[in-house]
Amino acid sequence: MKFADYITVYKQKINEAIKSIWDSKIESIKNSFLKDYYSEIRKYFLAGGKRIRPLLCIATYNAFKEEKDEKIILPSIGTEFLHNASLIHDDIIDKDDFRRGKPAFHFRFRNYHEKYQLKKMSPSDFGNSIGIIGGDSVFITGLEAYLDNEFERDLNLQAINKYEQAFLKIINGVLIETDMVNRKTLSIDDYIEMVSLKTGALIEKSILIGANYSKADSKSCELLSVYGINLGIIFQIIDDILGSFGDEKLTGKPTDGDIREGKHTCLLIEALNKSSDLDKKRIIELIEKPEMSEAEVQEVRDLFQKADVINSCKDLANKYYEEAQNALDKLRLKINNSEMEFFEDLLQFVYNRSF
Amino acid sequence: MKFADYITVYKQKINEAIKSIWDSKIESIKNSFLKDYYSEIRKYFLAGGKRIRPLLCIATYNAFKEEKDEKIILPSIGTEFLHNASLIHDDIIDKDDFRRGKPAFHFRFRNYHEKYQLKKMSPSDFGNSIGIIGGDSVFITGLEAYLDNEFERDLNLQAINKYEQAFLKIINGVLIETDMVNRKTLSIDDYIEMVSLKTGALIEKSILIGANYSKADSKSCELLSVYGINLGIIFQIIDDILGSFGDEKLTGKPTDGDIREGKHTCLLIEALNKSSDLDKKRIIELIEKPEMSEAEVQEVRDLFQKADVINSCKDLANKYYEEAQNALDKLRLKINNSEMEFFEDLLQFVYNRSF
Repeated sequence: MKFADYITVYKQKINEAIKSIWDSKIESIKNSFLKDYYSEIRKYFLAGGKRIRPLLCIATYNAFKEEKDEKIILPSIGTEFLHNASLIHDDIIDKDDFRRGKPAFHFRFRNYHEKYQLKKMSPSDFGNSIGIIGGDSVFITGLEAYLDNEFERDLNLQAINKYEQAFLKIINGVLIETDMVNRKTLSIDDYIEMVSLKTGALIEKSILIGANYSKADSKSCELLSVYGINLGIIFQIIDDILGSFGDEKLTGKPTDGDIREGKHTCLLIEALNKSSDLDKKRIIELIEKPEMSEAEVQEVRDLFQKADVINSCKDLANKYYEEAQNALDKLRLKINNSEMEFFEDLLQFVYNRSF
Repeated sequence: MKFADYITVYKQKINEAIKSIWDSKIESIKNSFLKDYYSEIRKYFLAGGKRIRPLLCIATYNAFKEEKDEKIILPSIGTEFLHNASLIHDDIIDKDDFRRGKPAFHFRFRNYHEKYQLKKMSPSDFGNSIGIIGGDSVFITGLEAYLDNEFERDLNLQAINKYEQAFLKIINGVLIETDMVNRKTLSIDDYIEMVSLKTGALIEKSILIGANYSKADSKSCELLSVYGINLGIIFQIIDDILGSFGDEKLTGKPTDGDIREGKHTCLLIEALNKSSDLDKKRIIELIEKPEMSEAEVQEVRDLFQKADVINSCKDLANKYYEEAQNALDKLRLKINNSEMEFFEDLLQFVYNRSF
């Protein structure tokens, strides 16, 4: 089954499971501010998202099953909570008030504050405070996916273990990225380590949680793990390219953010490794400025082009694509054809995406 | 066994268990920034704290055991992680740079930033960012107390369930408190609901996690639950009194913070309920000011005294003290004498404390 068909079959069911968790919270609460708060979280969750992580969990579960069942839908949404929680906290840290054209979670509460003229706190402090708490709510509520479902307790405890590991890896990835901004010399290996943690781990664990519930053998889990981490790495490489050279109308993301933040994207690392000493010096000079003009952002982009970094990064993505495909090939006889098609199609989609 | 004796017997062991979790993280990491980060978390954890929550968990476990064992020490530390995680996030939200005379977690990283002259982020933003991530690290790592210990998986899953419930209740309590600042009329019942969630729930769940591991009967759990929530309520009432009328040298906490923040402490609520219309108007006028002078803070304190609120709040604490003692009396024949003594002694300690 193609990735798009999987979306058609499962996305609505995934959304229903997400809704039911927040609905039960909203219903059980009397306090009107708490009702507003949980309603806003619910709205935030349902505002968009392809649900790649739950879909990967479901597909992996199905890959090993002779007969499909829907027990997996509830536990599949756990990592989607973790993903959203980390977006909520990241947007506060990065001071991003919008994500994919929609208000960030903390920004929604800044507006709430302005509307109700709350006292004793500035709108911005109020928004950030509710954002910090909001991320916490979402992180911990994700555990409910594993605490009350139709699977054995043993499997649920394994799933929680993976949820915890994924969370710790994301945190380590974000910390390494924060520290990277302050370092002068960086290799592509450092970058790959960082994105494996920041992006790869959660995709990998979403897959392994599905494998856990279908009791897949350990050799298959190893191969799935390679596929998952590499899928995450490719996703991030392409994200970096689109973040400076994408079509804003398609990505919903401004193409100057990464450059202004001095983010150590694969583009920047490749540019620093491949440019002449003079160009390299100029790039560093530009990205270290606390504020950059539009012309300066464009100058960095031009220097990236001069070093032909898009092609280098595509080559890099290609290397991980081949490794992921290789892992899939070894899985071919062990998993159902329909899910094999899903995994291959998703790999192509992530590699070729322009949004 | 008295509370102080329990500290003597167990505090070192609790600290060893906490250390071992952070040490294993520090050892497994190569990246130097991550090493600094986890070392700082470890230092923060070991800087102080009476470990009331782990002690309550251990004592409850022991209360139902004919022979004691040390299996409970590792799972007992889970709620201490949750407690510290919420302090880390609260200190960012409340902009408290110190806690009990020591630098808050986010403030440590503000200093780190200044020392290493990191780029692209102000020291304050850097401190807050690492603080947000730091709280996340701590509350997810708390799960390790239940993921790898000597108990049955079934009991561990129950413990995780209680950890999740406690976390959600703390969050709801903090949100209700945030919203309270914006409300004009408040009853003591609203206050009790808020502190039951914010402070009572984690104490209650620490106890119930101990009861869970010793497989206590459900009637005992109900009584323990009443004891725990009431202990939390008393703790918070006394905390409010000490927060405006305590001895800073003993509490390590300035006595103007709550008044300046316009926090809806039991003192303020009682003062608004008991004062003349004129005094009430003046109190509201003062606490709604964005900035208060020292003289204005003292004026609020004087108006509190005029309304005799310390005694009203002590009476309030007394009511919950009696309920807690009542629950203990009903437990007397079901639990060991040694732990009965611990519970009674702790109740008195929390009620009578001046620090």
